[in-house]
Amino acid sequence: MDYVNGPGRNHLFVPGPVNIPDQVIRAMSRNNEDYRSPAIPALTKTLLEDVKKIFKTTSGTPFLIPTTGYLLSLSCIYTCSMLQHIHMHLFHCEIGASYSKAHIENGSAGTGAWESALTNTLSPGDRIVSFLIGQFSLLWIDQQQRLNFNVDVVESEWGRGADLDALAAKIAEDKAHTIKAICIVHNETATGVTNNLATVRKILDRYQHPALFLVDGVSSICALDFRMDEWGVDVALTGSQKALSLPTGIGIVCASGKALEASKTAKSVRVFFDWKDYLKFYKMGTYWPYTPSIQLLYGLRAALDLLFEEGLDNVIARHNRLATATRLAVEAWGLKNCTQKEEWYSDTVTAVVIPAYIDSAEIVRRAWKRYNLSLGLGLNKVAGKVFRIGHLGNLNELQLLGCLSGVEMVLKDVGYPVKLGSGVAAAAAYLQNTTPLIPSRI
Amino acid sequence: MDYVNGPGRNHLFVPGPVNIPDQVIRAMSRNNEDYRSPAIPALTKTLLEDVKKIFKTTSGTPFLIPTTGYLLSLSCIYTCSMLQHIHMHLFHCEIGASYSKAHIENGSAGTGAWESALTNTLSPGDRIVSFLIGQFSLLWIDQQQRLNFNVDVVESEWGRGADLDALAAKIAEDKAHTIKAICIVHNETATGVTNNLATVRKILDRYQHPALFLVDGVSSICALDFRMDEWGVDVALTGSQKALSLPTGIGIVCASGKALEASKTAKSVRVFFDWKDYLKFYKMGTYWPYTPSIQLLYGLRAALDLLFEEGLDNVIARHNRLATATRLAVEAWGLKNCTQKEEWYSDTVTAVVIPAYIDSAEIVRRAWKRYNLSLGLGLNKVAGKVFRIGHLGNLNELQLLGCLSGVEMVLKDVGYPVKLGSGVAAAAAYLQNTTPLIPSRI
Amino acid sequence: MDYVNGPGRNHLFVPGPVNIPDQVIRAMSRNNEDYRSPAIPALTKTLLEDVKKIFKTTSGTPFLIPTTGYLLSLSCIYTCSMLQHIHMHLFHCEIGASYSKAHIENGSAGTGAWESALTNTLSPGDRIVSFLIGQFSLLWIDQQQRLNFNVDVVESEWGRGADLDALAAKIAEDKAHTIKAICIVHNETATGVTNNLATVRKILDRYQHPALFLVDGVSSICALDFRMDEWGVDVALTGSQKALSLPTGIGIVCASGKALEASKTAKSVRVFFDWKDYLKFYKMGTYWPYTPSIQLLYGLRAALDLLFEEGLDNVIARHNRLATATRLAVEAWGLKNCTQKEEWYSDTVTAVVIPAYIDSAEIVRRAWKRYNLSLGLGLNKVAGKVFRIGHLGNLNELQLLGCLSGVEMVLKDVGYPVKLGSGVAAAAAYLQNTTPLIPSRI
Amino acid sequence: MDYVNGPGRNHLFVPGPVNIPDQVIRAMSRNNEDYRSPAIPALTKTLLEDVKKIFKTTSGTPFLIPTTGYLLSLSCIYTCSMLQHIHMHLFHCEIGASYSKAHIENGSAGTGAWESALTNTLSPGDRIVSFLIGQFSLLWIDQQQRLNFNVDVVESEWGRGADLDALAAKIAEDKAHTIKAICIVHNETATGVTNNLATVRKILDRYQHPALFLVDGVSSICALDFRMDEWGVDVALTGSQKALSLPTGIGIVCASGKALEASKTAKSVRVFFDWKDYLKFYKMGTYWPYTPSIQLLYGLRAALDLLFEEGLDNVIARHNRLATATRLAVEAWGLKNCTQKEEWYSDTVTAVVIPAYIDSAEIVRRAWKRYNLSLGLGLNKVAGKVFRIGHLGNLNELQLLGCLSGVEMVLKDVGYPVKLGSGVAAAAAYLQNTTPLIPSRI
Repeated sequence: MDYVNGPGRNHLFVPGPVNIPDQVIRAMSRNNEDYRSPAIPALTKTLLEDVKKIFKTTSGTPFLIPTTGYLLSLSCIYTCSMLQHIHMHLFHCEIGASYSKAHIENGSAGTGAWESALTNTLSPGDRIVSFLIGQFSLLWIDQQQRLNFNVDVVESEWGRGADLDALAAKIAEDKAHTIKAICIVHNETATGVTNNLATVRKILDRYQHPALFLVDGVSSICALDFRMDEWGVDVALTGSQKALSLPTGIGIVCASGKALEASKTAKSVRVFFDWKDYLKFYKMGTYWPYTPSIQLLYGLRAALDLLFEEGLDNVIARHNRLATATRLAVEAWGLKNCTQKEEWYSDTVTAVVIPAYIDSAEIVRRAWKRYNLSLGLGLNKVAGKVFRIGHLGNLNELQLLGCLSGVEMVLKDVGYPVKLGSGVAAAAAYLQNTTPLIPSRI
Repeated sequence: MDYVNGPGRNHLFVPGPVNIPDQVIRAMSRNNEDYRSPAIPALTKTLLEDVKKIFKTTSGTPFLIPTTGYLLSLSCIYTCSMLQHIHMHLFHCEIGASYSKAHIENGSAGTGAWESALTNTLSPGDRIVSFLIGQFSLLWIDQQQRLNFNVDVVESEWGRGADLDALAAKIAEDKAHTIKAICIVHNETATGVTNNLATVRKILDRYQHPALFLVDGVSSICALDFRMDEWGVDVALTGSQKALSLPTGIGIVCASGKALEASKTAKSVRVFFDWKDYLKFYKMGTYWPYTPSIQLLYGLRAALDLLFEEGLDNVIARHNRLATATRLAVEAWGLKNCTQKEEWYSDTVTAVVIPAYIDSAEIVRRAWKRYNLSLGLGLNKVAGKVFRIGHLGNLNELQLLGCLSGVEMVLKDVGYPVKLGSGVAAAAAYLQNTTPLIPSRI
Repeated sequence: MDYVNGPGRNHLFVPGPVNIPDQVIRAMSRNNEDYRSPAIPALTKTLLEDVKKIFKTTSGTPFLIPTTGYLLSLSCIYTCSMLQHIHMHLFHCEIGASYSKAHIENGSAGTGAWESALTNTLSPGDRIVSFLIGQFSLLWIDQQQRLNFNVDVVESEWGRGADLDALAAKIAEDKAHTIKAICIVHNETATGVTNNLATVRKILDRYQHPALFLVDGVSSICALDFRMDEWGVDVALTGSQKALSLPTGIGIVCASGKALEASKTAKSVRVFFDWKDYLKFYKMGTYWPYTPSIQLLYGLRAALDLLFEEGLDNVIARHNRLATATRLAVEAWGLKNCTQKEEWYSDTVTAVVIPAYIDSAEIVRRAWKRYNLSLGLGLNKVAGKVFRIGHLGNLNELQLLGCLSGVEMVLKDVGYPVKLGSGVAAAAAYLQNTTPLIPSRI
Repeated sequence: MDYVNGPGRNHLFVPGPVNIPDQVIRAMSRNNEDYRSPAIPALTKTLLEDVKKIFKTTSGTPFLIPTTGYLLSLSCIYTCSMLQHIHMHLFHCEIGASYSKAHIENGSAGTGAWESALTNTLSPGDRIVSFLIGQFSLLWIDQQQRLNFNVDVVESEWGRGADLDALAAKIAEDKAHTIKAICIVHNETATGVTNNLATVRKILDRYQHPALFLVDGVSSICALDFRMDEWGVDVALTGSQKALSLPTGIGIVCASGKALEASKTAKSVRVFFDWKDYLKFYKMGTYWPYTPSIQLLYGLRAALDLLFEEGLDNVIARHNRLATATRLAVEAWGLKNCTQKEEWYSDTVTAVVIPAYIDSAEIVRRAWKRYNLSLGLGLNKVAGKVFRIGHLGNLNELQLLGCLSGVEMVLKDVGYPVKLGSGVAAAAAYLQNTTPLIPSRI
């Protein structure tokens, strides 16, 4: 089946799905089991206890939801005109060519985890404040609209963080507490922008505003510093295929006590995503209202074991180290980070802006076709203008440097006058100073 | 992690999740990939083409939905009083004891695939006729009610098939075409009852009734004879962890042209399950509106290859052969099949009725604890009264005979005066006459 | 590659290679590593310490030798005339037909482990007493002769144990201590005969004879009671693909202090198998004189962990339980055990004698072609006359009962008037009385 | 068991064992099988046919020998005095420290494949000409001496190729044909030196000398241009863990007709390695004189499939490309290649000479401890003086560039004033010009 095989490893640097460690692949390589035997509840119990640690919560209630990554639809505001264009070219697609379409194929949408967070806590017509700062926040907003919430969209230029001043103004004004929830992505995967969640909490606290605080932590949790309890987050969510370094398949949603309380009165219609069913099975100690993926449960166990063995803080520090190295390389290449200010720099993904005379999709295509390197496309507004380097998950320094070397060669391939070795040198200089010894090998 | 390990293989005879062939486990043992590269769409294209064959449709449109097995909730009619009972015992659960609870933990509900089928084709308030014949049809009805449809429930005694005379009467009466859909399980997993779908179609045709024909084929498709086009089924669905012999994780929903047409006007709120998003990506040739599980895609490819190598008709014949052998064993033991008439006999699962002085949960528990044999519990109305032998998926004669020997020993363990070897002998006599040579080895 | 695939599991009941537990397959599913890094010596150290336990020795020195199962050559006494016959038919072989040749293809020979044991302790011309009781002892004798030892062969009828009276006589006579070694198989895999090693030690002790005591424990160690130190065994050996339940690839040889002393003066030419090279690397703590199979080392670790988790004595008891059940089935079928007396019954393999009008090769062939059941052929003198059921390694009761059901059906297929279910019933009656609960599940 | 785990992939750049492609790991992740069933002979037949292609022979006879990598003993000429030194330090070894010993732990020896080649074609006392140019040729010579051949050693300075002028002189003189064989390594793994085999053949032909031509192709075959038939090689051999990219476990020996003829009269004692046993089973079509590793057979099948899919000539070109890039990096770092002349440059391994003030073992140790990079130690005469980069097997450009970046950082770590990025830039400049598109992705 590997008909597009090339020699050696694929270098997977999209911002998800990410590389799976061998220990996890091994743990998942197994037959099905009867999930009603006592073995699976006992395993599940450890998982539910331990995933709370990656959210830094002791009071939250986690749900392991069988779902996927981002659901990308096309009904959104930005891509309608593009779509006309796509349809004309529809029958010209061939293998090797499809990357060229990918950069415009994203529209509105949302994941199962998003839908779980929203439908369990809110009722149709509820006013929510939501920040549009890139493709994935846009997709979430599209979902919010399709679920019939009254979405108060706060838009920023792509490459900038959420406009928290606008939030402060809205909260200040909202004496009647018509705002039921604030929805924000911790890290916008399309532009490499990290929002300051502590500030959101401060704003809500300043005005003693009771709005729920819902956070998409898909490309942040397990990689960036995330503090559910300290920041008073009401629902946080992530996906298995991101920094947890698993296959796609589990959405992890964690709900505060306040969110659970809200779920009792929320009127959104829901069955598949209803927390109520989970909670009843939690009480009985059998945990699963339906057949879970046995393989993913064992995989999650192995992934958590690896995370805790390395130490969550060390994992976060490693992400910062690799991200800093990447940014230094980008600077050395004379290219711009799509993220406009250092305060928003993302430690999980870097969107690199390229000169107008180059199509970034060509960079992605060529990287894959020539160097077995998988990079992220620019999406929607920044399609063709940026390419993305995902540096999250179970990854180390030399893997990143191999990727950066590859990017240099591709840049040269497409006509950008990069000095080969320049980015690698800048990154390596930083890494050589900062990389610790591997603790188990000292 | 295998802390409840015993020597040798686990004998997995629950009616799902079922045994995964080694070829499929191998195919899934792999790293993530960038699903936007041309490789994954090319793979997906073959999958979408080939899953149509397992539904026996050429005109249907399949959707591969990231979801799970049956979602079991507790809000259903039957189990409310039982729940009181559960809660009192809640904190006494220990490993090894939890089987005793499992048999009462099921209530109403539905899967993602069910939700996909319903919300894409129907609007809140629509009248649907639905057959309650066991736990899983009950769960689906619960979902239908929670999604605000007007469910016209046709109930049968557990162990009997759907009351198609009642259906005929309703259809005959419904000149105004107020019935928008017929919802029926092809095979009720809780009681081992197979419904006659051809008759349903005949009834609809007789009265030229335009109701949609929605079929849960979870424990039938790839194992029982299923003919989507011939029977005019509008939506059929199955799950990866059943006869396809994969891990849990993919719901496969197949929609007729009429169902697709209905989806354009159906008013049920849906985002995650919305077919529209899929269809747009199908048109573009990239197929995935969100991140799929790379591993399950390769696994599905391997599973389909195995099915077609054996031949779908041979697979169906094998299921009939193993099921007949199982029924002969049950008869030899002097026990009754929960299924009341031969016309409803299921070739994927046999529910065995045991004498009143034995608790069937004890059989299941002991099988697992002593013989590493996983059997299915009795659910809800038949909890404690039946145990189930799942004989679906990638399975052969000697595996089944090992299971039947195990059941005999367990029966003796719990005090039923079985003659050891009696069931095995009856099954073997049949199998020795009917099992063909393995074609690749002739 | 699985072009002779059939549905369901292969039922592997040859007396080696045996079923590998999933935990071991998982542990081996990995990339290569630099075996000179500190990781591999640290792993190896635990392995060398722990393999001593399976030999029940504290003073022995183990060697993990990259080698294979039995080397079967054709230069032996018995098969020369058969060979003429083979050559005439040489070009008629096709898939499906080759089993018919297998039963005559075995001759003299030996494994790498045998060669290691002999060449490290003996010099060309040395007199050794060796027992010929079946195909594998014959093969070892052939190797001994080809290595230029002076082999004093003590022959028994196939189906009987080693003639220890003859040994006693020879030892009594040998005042001059011309006998340098006694070579004996603990368990003859071809006939299912277990020799009494304690008696051998007693005989040597009675006469204070200094001969080395060399034991082939290939189909016994980890399955039968084996006590290297207590019985004063000087070299014991086994293979990974037998009761250890690993792939073929490691010969494990364990040498007493006396054997190590003998190796200093033994004049047999050896390089690849020379213990000296190992011992030097043991001293340095790097352990490996050459590149080991990383995968097998991790696999051996997992296999030993499983053995110790179950408990070596429980493993041995399980082998006795499954073997007893098998013998009861054979009796119920009205067939004879090839092993002539109970004192020699083997708990790892049962050779079943069939009536003269049936060719046992046809049984083996048909089992594989129709029921996906792999049985052992009769070899050499008993070719066509017996078939063998291997019941060693990681195996449980229901797997065995599935196999026995299969054997019954095959017997009927080939015209033997077996009563279906009779053997299974006899075996199950015993197992239902004796099988303990799985400790981890109590 | 992965107690020395670090985040991300291990970067395996020792010159063997090398990286195993995922396809091969998957193919090997399986249970044992009965090797006497028709499946394994049918598989083996394809393997024997196809391995001939990697030797570029049509007339040779291949043997798949269960064996290992190089057997390293300590009885050689060079290390005796070093050994005294080792023993004094013997009890100070700890994890993390053992690399420091590794560089002196090698002595004379040989592999099973070597032993197979020698003992099947030669008799004790036979005169053979053998070239000592580095550690592995030295080990082979040690084996030759221990097997009692009369070895005429032609020594070169380490870093230079075999002295073929000396060979020419010896052949010219040897009118009596006392020289029975020429033994030469195609590629000396310790120094990165490739010998010119075509010239050896020319010398023999010039004098019509009948000596056998025995070649160790362990670190060359499947990576360097090797032409068994064209060069008149009589025995060529390689190991699975080298350019074939498999686990350790199979030695592949290929014999010419002349070598087979010689084996009929060769008087070296051999059993385990005797070709005769294989040949008899070849004739019968069952192929295996003993239990092979089922897993390695399927792995070899997958490895050959990958090689042929890429194309053997493309594989060889890729090795040249990666090797050239490595050499350019070494030059850019201002370091010397251990190989003294371009004509001997090895495309599978580069030994890098470092300044006297640095211990190369410290480089290897630090690479592993800090960057999860596995490099090769300097061995014996060049211990401490060189480190080695293995660039063979299933490997691509970005993997190599990651490794080179790592080497740069390590060099800086240990005090060598390398300009970070310099080597990577030089290598990338070459690779960016020469790397072809991946054919399956065009």
